[in-house]
Amino acid sequence: MMNRQIVLSSRPQGKVGVDSFTARETPIAAPGPGHILVRNRFLSLDPYMRGRLNDGPSYAKPQALNEPMIGGTVGEIVDSGDSKFAPGDWVVGMGGWQTHCLGLGREWRKIDTRLAPPSAYLGPLGMPGITAWIGLKTILSPKPGETLVVSAATGAVGSVVGQLAKAAGARVVGIAGGPEKCRYALDELGFDACVDHRAQNFAALMKTELASGVDCLFENVGGEPFAQTIRRLNDFSRIAVCGLIASYEGPLTGLPDLRLLLVKRCRIEGFIVSDHLELWGEALKALAQATAAGRLKHRETVLEGLDAAPGGLVSLLSGGNFGKMIVKLD
Amino acid sequence: MMNRQIVLSSRPQGKVGVDSFTARETPIAAPGPGHILVRNRFLSLDPYMRGRLNDGPSYAKPQALNEPMIGGTVGEIVDSGDSKFAPGDWVVGMGGWQTHCLGLGREWRKIDTRLAPPSAYLGPLGMPGITAWIGLKTILSPKPGETLVVSAATGAVGSVVGQLAKAAGARVVGIAGGPEKCRYALDELGFDACVDHRAQNFAALMKTELASGVDCLFENVGGEPFAQTIRRLNDFSRIAVCGLIASYEGPLTGLPDLRLLLVKRCRIEGFIVSDHLELWGEALKALAQATAAGRLKHRETVLEGLDAAPGGLVSLLSGGNFGKMIVKLD
Repeated sequence: MMNRQIVLSSRPQGKVGVDSFTARETPIAAPGPGHILVRNRFLSLDPYMRGRLNDGPSYAKPQALNEPMIGGTVGEIVDSGDSKFAPGDWVVGMGGWQTHCLGLGREWRKIDTRLAPPSAYLGPLGMPGITAWIGLKTILSPKPGETLVVSAATGAVGSVVGQLAKAAGARVVGIAGGPEKCRYALDELGFDACVDHRAQNFAALMKTELASGVDCLFENVGGEPFAQTIRRLNDFSRIAVCGLIASYEGPLTGLPDLRLLLVKRCRIEGFIVSDHLELWGEALKALAQATAAGRLKHRETVLEGLDAAPGGLVSLLSGGNFGKMIVKLD
Repeated sequence: MMNRQIVLSSRPQGKVGVDSFTARETPIAAPGPGHILVRNRFLSLDPYMRGRLNDGPSYAKPQALNEPMIGGTVGEIVDSGDSKFAPGDWVVGMGGWQTHCLGLGREWRKIDTRLAPPSAYLGPLGMPGITAWIGLKTILSPKPGETLVVSAATGAVGSVVGQLAKAAGARVVGIAGGPEKCRYALDELGFDACVDHRAQNFAALMKTELASGVDCLFENVGGEPFAQTIRRLNDFSRIAVCGLIASYEGPLTGLPDLRLLLVKRCRIEGFIVSDHLELWGEALKALAQATAAGRLKHRETVLEGLDAAPGGLVSLLSGGNFGKMIVKLD
C-alpha cells in the first residue's frame, strides 16, 4: 500500500497552473508512539493556499518545494499509536494533499459524523466556519438593523458570515459572481440581497442595494467589489479583511484615500483565524448548534480523486467553485 | 465697543490663502438669560480648520460663508446671564475668530489658570491634548517596550502623544520637519528618537530608527512619513488616523496594498475627538495631573492680534508652527 501525494514542484510566477504540481507515491510507515495513520477522505481547497506558494515573507512559512502541499483533511484512523484514537475514528487535521497522513495524534481532532457529514468539518464546522465566526465576533459585531456586506458570498466563509449575521439581526447584502450564485444566496442562504459583480451595471446595483450605506464589510475578495463597497460606508463602519482573492494573482487592492477613514471614523482590520485558537472551542460550539438547528446551510463543489486537486485550486482562484471546494479522495 | 471678527469670504480652491478671509466689526449685544459675553484672549489654530473650508460632506458641517471662522478660544467673562459664570472668570469654548463671543454658558467650561497658563487650555489641557489621550486610549494602547511612531511630533497633538506614550513605557519615535524640531523632541519632550522628514535620507533614517518595527502609529500627517512608517509595521500593529495634514492641500494619502493588513494583522482606525465626549472628563483629569507633575511639556508659536489668524492658518498647514499655534487677541 502506497501513499499518493501531490507536491509543489515549482513556484508559480503570476497565475498558478497545474504544472506547478507533481504526483508521487511513497511507502507508508507504521505510526510510532503518539502518532496516528490517517486515511484522508476529503481534502479542503482554500484561497490561502495561493499565498503559501510564494516565497516572500508572510504570516506563515511558504510551502516547501517537493513536499506534499499543505491542506486540511478529514479522514479515518487506520492505525494508532495514540491511545486517544482508534482505527475507524473520523478525524480532522492538516493532512495535506495525499491519501495517507502519518502525524501526531494531538494535532488532530475527532469529529462527530452524526451531526454532519465528514466534509462539513472542512466547511461550516471547520476552518472556514470558524473564520467567519471569529471575524464577526472580534471585528465586525453587527448590530440588529445594521447592513453587512460580504464578498465571495456563497463561498465557504462568506456563506457562513451571511447566515450568522442574519441570525444576529443584520441586513445582509452578498456579492457573488454570476446570477446562479446570487439566486442561491437569496433563496437558500436567506440573504436580503446579493449583487452580481460580473453584471455590467455592478456599480449601479451596489448603489441601489446599499442606499442606506454599509456598517460592516467582511472582505474576502478585494478588487472592484471592495472599491464599490467602500464608496457606501457609513459613519463608524468596520471592515474585516479576511482575504483578497482578486489580488492574489491580479492587481493590488488598495485604499486610495485615507481621509475616508477619518471622515467616516472607520476601522479596518486584517485577521488570520489561526491567531485566535483560544476562540475555536466557542466558535465550534456555536457552529455545531446552528448546524443542528438547521440554521447553517452549506453547499460543496466536490472533485473526484487526489489528482484533481491542482486543477481545483486553479479553478477556486477564479471563482470556479460554488460553495466549499472539496476533493474526495477515495 | 465693537467685536472684530474674521469671516470666511470665499472657499479656497486648492491651497488656502489669506485672501479667503475678511475682517469686519459688529456691535456687541448684552447676554440674555443663560448666555455669557466672553472677551476672547487666545485663539487656537488647528489643522481641522482646513477641512471646514471645503463644501463637501464630512463629519462636520462646512464653515458657513460670511460667518466668523470657528475656532477654540480661551477668554474672560465680561458679562454674564448665567449664574454659573461671573465677570473675570476664565473660560474655554468654541469662541471663534473674533475678539468677543456671545454664547450659551453651558457650551463653555471654566479653567484653572493657577494650574497652567490660559493658552495651555487650547493645547495639552484642551482639545489637542484630549485628542492625543483618546487616540492612545481607545485605539493604540501602547504596551511597555512597544515602539510608537508619531508624526507632527512636536505639534499640539503629537507632543502630548509622545509624552503620554513614554509614560506608558513605549519607545517613542517622532517624525518632524527640520533639525530644530527633532532636537526639541529628543531634548525637551524626551522622545527616544525623532526623524526629520525633510532630510535627504529620510527613508534610510526611518529604516535605522525602526529596525525593530512599529507597533503603534499615531498618524497626523500622511504622505511620505506615513508611507515610510507602514513599511515597518510589526504583526498586530495599530494605526490611529487622527489627521492627514499633508493631504489636505496635497496629494492623497493611500494604502496601496491591503495585503499588508492581512499579512501583519493590522488595525487602522480613524477617529474624531468630538465623538468621545464621554471620555473628556477622564482625559482632562489625566492631562491635568501630568501637567501638575511637570510631565507634560508644551511649546507654542504665538501670533499677535486677530488679524494674524489667516496667515497663521496658512503657515500651520505647511508646518510653519513649532508646537501649538496660538493667536493672542489683546
